[in-house]
Amino acid sequence: MQGVLEEALSRLLGLVPAPSLTVAGRTDAGVHARGQVAHVDVPVPAWRAAASSLARRLDRVLPADVLVRSVAPAPPGFDARFSALWRRYTYRVCDSRAHLDPVRRTDTLWHPRPLSLDRMNEAARACLGEHDFAAFCRPRRGASTVRDVRELRWERAGPGVAVGTVVADAFCHNMVRALTGALLAVGDGRKAPGWLETVLAGRVRDPAVVVAPPHPLCLEEVRYPPDSELADRAARTRQARGAGRAGA
Amino acid sequence: MQGVLEEALSRLLGLVPAPSLTVAGRTDAGVHARGQVAHVDVPVPAWRAAASSLARRLDRVLPADVLVRSVAPAPPGFDARFSALWRRYTYRVCDSRAHLDPVRRTDTLWHPRPLSLDRMNEAARACLGEHDFAAFCRPRRGASTVRDVRELRWERAGPGVAVGTVVADAFCHNMVRALTGALLAVGDGRKAPGWLETVLAGRVRDPAVVVAPPHPLCLEEVRYPPDSELADRAARTRQARGAGRAGA
Repeated sequence: MQGVLEEALSRLLGLVPAPSLTVAGRTDAGVHARGQVAHVDVPVPAWRAAASSLARRLDRVLPADVLVRSVAPAPPGFDARFSALWRRYTYRVCDSRAHLDPVRRTDTLWHPRPLSLDRMNEAARACLGEHDFAAFCRPRRGASTVRDVRELRWERAGPGVAVGTVVADAFCHNMVRALTGALLAVGDGRKAPGWLETVLAGRVRDPAVVVAPPHPLCLEEVRYPPDSELADRAARTRQARGAGRAGA
Repeated sequence: MQGVLEEALSRLLGLVPAPSLTVAGRTDAGVHARGQVAHVDVPVPAWRAAASSLARRLDRVLPADVLVRSVAPAPPGFDARFSALWRRYTYRVCDSRAHLDPVRRTDTLWHPRPLSLDRMNEAARACLGEHDFAAFCRPRRGASTVRDVRELRWERAGPGVAVGTVVADAFCHNMVRALTGALLAVGDGRKAPGWLETVLAGRVRDPAVVVAPPHPLCLEEVRYPPDSELADRAARTRQARGAGRAGA
């Protein structure tokens, strides 16, 4: 997505080399995003010349799987990644063969064992609040793996379909998929609900945690503070997470 | 789908040439099916040897976009196509750019003008009941284009998403897509609601009716009568529609 968009912007704004995009949620290959936010620095004359028609022209050159909903000048201090207050992701799973839908195979995991969402939600509670999520992250030197998870719950979206929602200030690389993999093991009975808390407390990558596939994961929403707090929020986030921190 | 399945059955049942599949709803290229039903004639020894493991083995050899939910011996007189009482199709459209979802682009039409479902449902009423749908069919010699439409209505499935449902004893080739194309023209104001009735009464293919794209169309369900009526229903359907009739 990022490369495709940078190339389109380079072409439409006449900028060589292509401008570099900063995205709110750096998604792994295969992860979807319905609510991605990005910013890009553009010389004022290039922006002025293109602004009025940019959204329409992007629509024409972008492939069908990349959609730009709107384009606007960013308020002062805005940083798509570091100004964000929180991100919301969903993960979609089908656990009933009778309700398996080939049409949705591109955004739904087929899990061949029935899931108890009660067990998953019981396990998930251990992750709420601020924790060191090193056990569920691909670690990177000098980067904090402390994150604040505000919401982590699973609901039925219809017969045979379970959707997990997770909201946090930010996520380490692989974090949502690792948490999901662990929760699925609890949901289908392979692990006890208390297992998640034990793994979390271990603070090291646990090989028993299987990272769930990327395609059912979707970045749904990124929330920012009021304009007046954007710069301050970005400065504080940068400081808290360390320059080389992993993921968004 | 049909070719892929016939090839898999040929391989797993050891039948050369491949057995020929009869499907309930012959979908155009690009049309989805969540509720397709098919029958195939198989020599008794081949069936006996393979029956117990066939569903599992099909699951292993079929590509991810073809799913066999179950395999069972057909009751006497069963014909997947001619025994059916009715078929139900849905058509999914997004008419709001703010709610356009690239993840669903494979099963949703992007319609850039807002739709009035009230207008569409008003127009749709003219199609209910038994009519000659020649105006909405690709005609075929000797085949009846008379069909009995039991239901045709549009509903909001969420913000910006409209879903049409149509139920009929059977459909001619292109019929749902042509009806949908006409209803979209009514829904966005290009045509008056009464236009559909006029086109229908004309009983000739109307060039003003644009056949809607196939990918948002899905065969959802096929309904059969009780086992005791299967053979009789098949005989009567064959007779009513003519040997060379178009579509299912």
